[in-house]
Amino acid sequence: MTETVYDFRSDNVGGIAPELLEAITAANVGTASPYGDDDFTRGMTARFRRTFEHDRLSVFPVATGTGANAVALAGLANAFGAIYCHATSHINVYECGAPEHFTGAKLVALQGADYKLHPEPLAAALGLAGRGNPTRVQPFALNVTQPTDFGTLYTVEEVRALCDVAHRHGLLVHLDGARFANALAALDCTPADMTWRAGVDVVSFGATKNGAMNAEAVVVFDEAAAARLPFLMKRGGQVLSKARYVSAQLDRYLADDRWLERARAANANARRLAERLTAIDGVTLAGPVQVNMLFTRMPSAAVAALDRGPFHYYKLGHEQRFVCRHDQETAGMDALVAAVAGTLA
Amino acid sequence: MTETVYDFRSDNVGGIAPELLEAITAANVGTASPYGDDDFTRGMTARFRRTFEHDRLSVFPVATGTGANAVALAGLANAFGAIYCHATSHINVYECGAPEHFTGAKLVALQGADYKLHPEPLAAALGLAGRGNPTRVQPFALNVTQPTDFGTLYTVEEVRALCDVAHRHGLLVHLDGARFANALAALDCTPADMTWRAGVDVVSFGATKNGAMNAEAVVVFDEAAAARLPFLMKRGGQVLSKARYVSAQLDRYLADDRWLERARAANANARRLAERLTAIDGVTLAGPVQVNMLFTRMPSAAVAALDRGPFHYYKLGHEQRFVCRHDQETAGMDALVAAVAGTLA
Amino acid sequence: MTETVYDFRSDNVGGIAPELLEAITAANVGTASPYGDDDFTRGMTARFRRTFEHDRLSVFPVATGTGANAVALAGLANAFGAIYCHATSHINVYECGAPEHFTGAKLVALQGADYKLHPEPLAAALGLAGRGNPTRVQPFALNVTQPTDFGTLYTVEEVRALCDVAHRHGLLVHLDGARFANALAALDCTPADMTWRAGVDVVSFGATKNGAMNAEAVVVFDEAAAARLPFLMKRGGQVLSKARYVSAQLDRYLADDRWLERARAANANARRLAERLTAIDGVTLAGPVQVNMLFTRMPSAAVAALDRGPFHYYKLGHEQRFVCRHDQETAGMDALVAAVAGTLA
Amino acid sequence: MTETVYDFRSDNVGGIAPELLEAITAANVGTASPYGDDDFTRGMTARFRRTFEHDRLSVFPVATGTGANAVALAGLANAFGAIYCHATSHINVYECGAPEHFTGAKLVALQGADYKLHPEPLAAALGLAGRGNPTRVQPFALNVTQPTDFGTLYTVEEVRALCDVAHRHGLLVHLDGARFANALAALDCTPADMTWRAGVDVVSFGATKNGAMNAEAVVVFDEAAAARLPFLMKRGGQVLSKARYVSAQLDRYLADDRWLERARAANANARRLAERLTAIDGVTLAGPVQVNMLFTRMPSAAVAALDRGPFHYYKLGHEQRFVCRHDQETAGMDALVAAVAGTLA
Repeated sequence: MTETVYDFRSDNVGGIAPELLEAITAANVGTASPYGDDDFTRGMTARFRRTFEHDRLSVFPVATGTGANAVALAGLANAFGAIYCHATSHINVYECGAPEHFTGAKLVALQGADYKLHPEPLAAALGLAGRGNPTRVQPFALNVTQPTDFGTLYTVEEVRALCDVAHRHGLLVHLDGARFANALAALDCTPADMTWRAGVDVVSFGATKNGAMNAEAVVVFDEAAAARLPFLMKRGGQVLSKARYVSAQLDRYLADDRWLERARAANANARRLAERLTAIDGVTLAGPVQVNMLFTRMPSAAVAALDRGPFHYYKLGHEQRFVCRHDQETAGMDALVAAVAGTLA
Repeated sequence: MTETVYDFRSDNVGGIAPELLEAITAANVGTASPYGDDDFTRGMTARFRRTFEHDRLSVFPVATGTGANAVALAGLANAFGAIYCHATSHINVYECGAPEHFTGAKLVALQGADYKLHPEPLAAALGLAGRGNPTRVQPFALNVTQPTDFGTLYTVEEVRALCDVAHRHGLLVHLDGARFANALAALDCTPADMTWRAGVDVVSFGATKNGAMNAEAVVVFDEAAAARLPFLMKRGGQVLSKARYVSAQLDRYLADDRWLERARAANANARRLAERLTAIDGVTLAGPVQVNMLFTRMPSAAVAALDRGPFHYYKLGHEQRFVCRHDQETAGMDALVAAVAGTLA
Repeated sequence: MTETVYDFRSDNVGGIAPELLEAITAANVGTASPYGDDDFTRGMTARFRRTFEHDRLSVFPVATGTGANAVALAGLANAFGAIYCHATSHINVYECGAPEHFTGAKLVALQGADYKLHPEPLAAALGLAGRGNPTRVQPFALNVTQPTDFGTLYTVEEVRALCDVAHRHGLLVHLDGARFANALAALDCTPADMTWRAGVDVVSFGATKNGAMNAEAVVVFDEAAAARLPFLMKRGGQVLSKARYVSAQLDRYLADDRWLERARAANANARRLAERLTAIDGVTLAGPVQVNMLFTRMPSAAVAALDRGPFHYYKLGHEQRFVCRHDQETAGMDALVAAVAGTLA
Repeated sequence: MTETVYDFRSDNVGGIAPELLEAITAANVGTASPYGDDDFTRGMTARFRRTFEHDRLSVFPVATGTGANAVALAGLANAFGAIYCHATSHINVYECGAPEHFTGAKLVALQGADYKLHPEPLAAALGLAGRGNPTRVQPFALNVTQPTDFGTLYTVEEVRALCDVAHRHGLLVHLDGARFANALAALDCTPADMTWRAGVDVVSFGATKNGAMNAEAVVVFDEAAAARLPFLMKRGGQVLSKARYVSAQLDRYLADDRWLERARAANANARRLAERLTAIDGVTLAGPVQVNMLFTRMPSAAVAALDRGPFHYYKLGHEQRFVCRHDQETAGMDALVAAVAGTLA
């Protein structure tokens, strides 16, 4: 911890935003009912209703993103169901089977350009799903990851088109918003536009990657799912004893524009870093930079230079992933660009 | 939140101890690897090894007690297994099926005086369990809740006697220590004495009810279980993205004697409250006061007086449960005693 | 297989009744659609509708009793549910966790005299079940085993009283009728009286123990459950490829009175054997003989005599269980009585 | 049932082979221990050991193919595991999630020409599986379907190559042999060659599609899996009460060469039918005919002619599937060819 390291691995290597730490401290007064039956959680719920312009939504505070996804999907699920998702989605690859474990359902993974689902292939897959055929798992939910784990974005119209296909086939829609703020900042739309107005039924609303301390929320627009969730939360070991400290963060998170400012800054850092790296001969992008991450391809000499440090980042096959935080050190980005440029000059 | 309420419902209505909030703040510097691969978690592990005098134990930080129990048991479990526990145990009654869900096993609930398991009936039950008979679920784990949900305590010898029976029958032992500190303070023994030296294989180590902010630990002495746990943690949605903030609390929690002082104070408050209440004619205890909770029986007029406020407490049938925190307000205890005494005078 | 053995262990040691073997042979003509979409299964369904006087029931043929119970309960279940049953019920003790595995629910075991559930304690337990409390599994089904594994019987009025309590608390009722015919013969009532008219929602209808070859039926009166069952059957590996051979048996089974005659004969054999054994000084019954099994207590010398053969029977602690088939050999019963009487004379 | 229909849908529309029905009848003598603890099952086990030239294998008789697959895989599985299989495999598409339900594992579906897995892409996928990474499900089993649901065959060398890759990566291998006999007949090798000598650890041995009455066997070469299976069988509702009738069939099935003769006849029927159909201008095969099924492409006028009857067959998109039995009616094949030829002439 004494050596300087510039960390581009993920946005969750960052700390707690000052106002959220203050919110925790401010909530540390007196007693409060446990398990979410407290005024902080009620206030947080009211805040989400205003922010999402939806006066009947329910919110469940949780500590982990995988917990949020797994419980959210369980709210929509049944035991012989299928959850449609992209093959590269977080729920399909990086949650060690938690969504299947909590739902009892099967994930059906579809391919799609830009790491995204597309309406026509989705409709085609659902048309072949064997609705009513007892040898086949029955489609009940669609997972849309916004942004994707590869930094690509769905437009609001694209979300709506997927929701329309899903609803026409009787599925409910889950939006995995681990980087909800980054997507919202990039699309410059309202939370309502990106979710229920487009047809989304339940959201995993991530705050941890954008400055919170292990604070996520399951936001439920579908009332039948909301009625099941308290039990599924407990059965999943997700109900927080002292929920007030997570609720207080989430309430404060949405209280002003800082969450969006942080997301915009992170997105801008990634865009700027991409511009500087691709200005170097031999470095290209594996895809567009739409939120706060970039995937590059560069000669192995440059990769070797990065590996000599002091940089942390991920490699995926022949690509390099760099994720930017709102408070990414300028010195770190300068050093990264210099290391690559120096090698390839 | 404006009116004064004296809250005797549970110890998790309390806040965060100052030094733990400071530990969170102190950890909020720079970047840290996510998911527990960070120096705070490594330091916390070293601390647990010293505190428990066991240099190969593993620790997994989690946010909820139910998550800790469910994952800990899953580390010991198999799909056709039986977990033996007391009929009144937390895992059997108050976790909405999480232990079954995470393990795929069946809970076998035994009766026992003082809400405790006893070696002879346990041995008898295991003798009739049908080991090797494929129509019967196969015993693989014993759950000991220390202290019990009804405030009774196992002595170290009692824990050892149960572990001996369990091990003789091929079971591993899980100790649910949601109130680990209160038990330790009451027994005045070491953590090692109360756990692995007595034969315990895995512990749910609770800190939340004793001043932490949603911080529990799964402490694993059994190495085979430890190897399985990282996967079970993730599959259970229990892996914290910014684990450093929970690990920093747990490290600080064990760094000096404040955790035990708080537990002793809470226990003493309960004992003192019990003495004062039972000094009133008509008030009796439903059982001994061994940690920080008491169960009383009192005339309905006294109950009615309490219900006029400003008191929060739980009723279980004809009994009243009062749980004391270390920082239970003296004014609240005085007022409670006065309300009962005034009615029964 | 060459030595004569008189087998009193269970009714499933017996063979296939002649008319059922004929039905299998008769069905072995031409081709038939697999998986129950065949004329034999349709005819069998029509037969069950007539026999049960219920024109909308659904029937699912299965090969095992545990499969029938587990799938039937899954039709009623949800993931955070509780199934109430007697502590000694087959689903609780002898199915290696299959009901939990297929339902995701928890079995809540109640005590009760005569190995039976009783309305008042059931109502009391349901009153304390914590409906709506997310820390508690939520009651959704009641299991009534008719007759019980210990040979006791519910009267029709008793079944109705339990169903009334269950329905008042929002539970559906499953009747485990592994020995349906023996119960019906003993009560001398109609299938409708013992099931849906009394409030039962789904039945595991056993035929194997009464002359069929691995042929059971899940009979569903509740239409929502019936809609879920085809999928749960497949997910449970219970859908028979050549269902016609099970359906043909079940159709033939109900086509005349032989199933009841066999059950009456088996019941009478048990009653007669009980009379003869208890006429011997020192032999007593552990309970009433209401169907085709008896539980005795006798001096250890008599037990030792039986163990010298040529008898098969089960011991449960200090009791001996004898189950009679319709075709129990007279020589075997004579020899059994002689062995005991000879020892105790 | 009175009109003549020529049924090419599947081999399980056929009846029971005469010698197997005789074996059932012959087993219908006296009493037998239930649940597989009988002489018929012991004899059947000895027979499998001889046939497979493996003196320590275990066999578990079951009634359904899905039950066999799900239980077999559960014998190999753990809760956070991955089962690798072809995207078109039966376990992935047509078992309504039973394999996931019984194992708690995730199916990882790979693409591959001829509906088959291939060693290099399998090795590549396993190399990227994230062994030891707790965010990823951990590979533990490989499913090889022999023949595939699309009638293609693995050579013995191909099975061995897949097993080698699997074992190198720590996976055990399950062979789904619903049409084991057809594969064996086509390859003209021994059961041992196609299974354990090639590296297979557990087999779903199907007999139903080749003349048995709901009789399949889980054949286990791996001793650790064998020790778990009795419990997993019961928990899965797969243990047959009167197992003798399934075991007697399986024993008789392997007692002479009729099972292989039937399979050869079925394969030959398919080959001959394919030759005759492809001799018609406009009819082509979608793939090679390696066992008893063929997939054709033909003009829509020919399809329409078939749909006028009296034929049963399946359509998959623009292809037609015809499965042949050993006793496929010559008249039916003639009529089918004539209907197509008449339309396209």
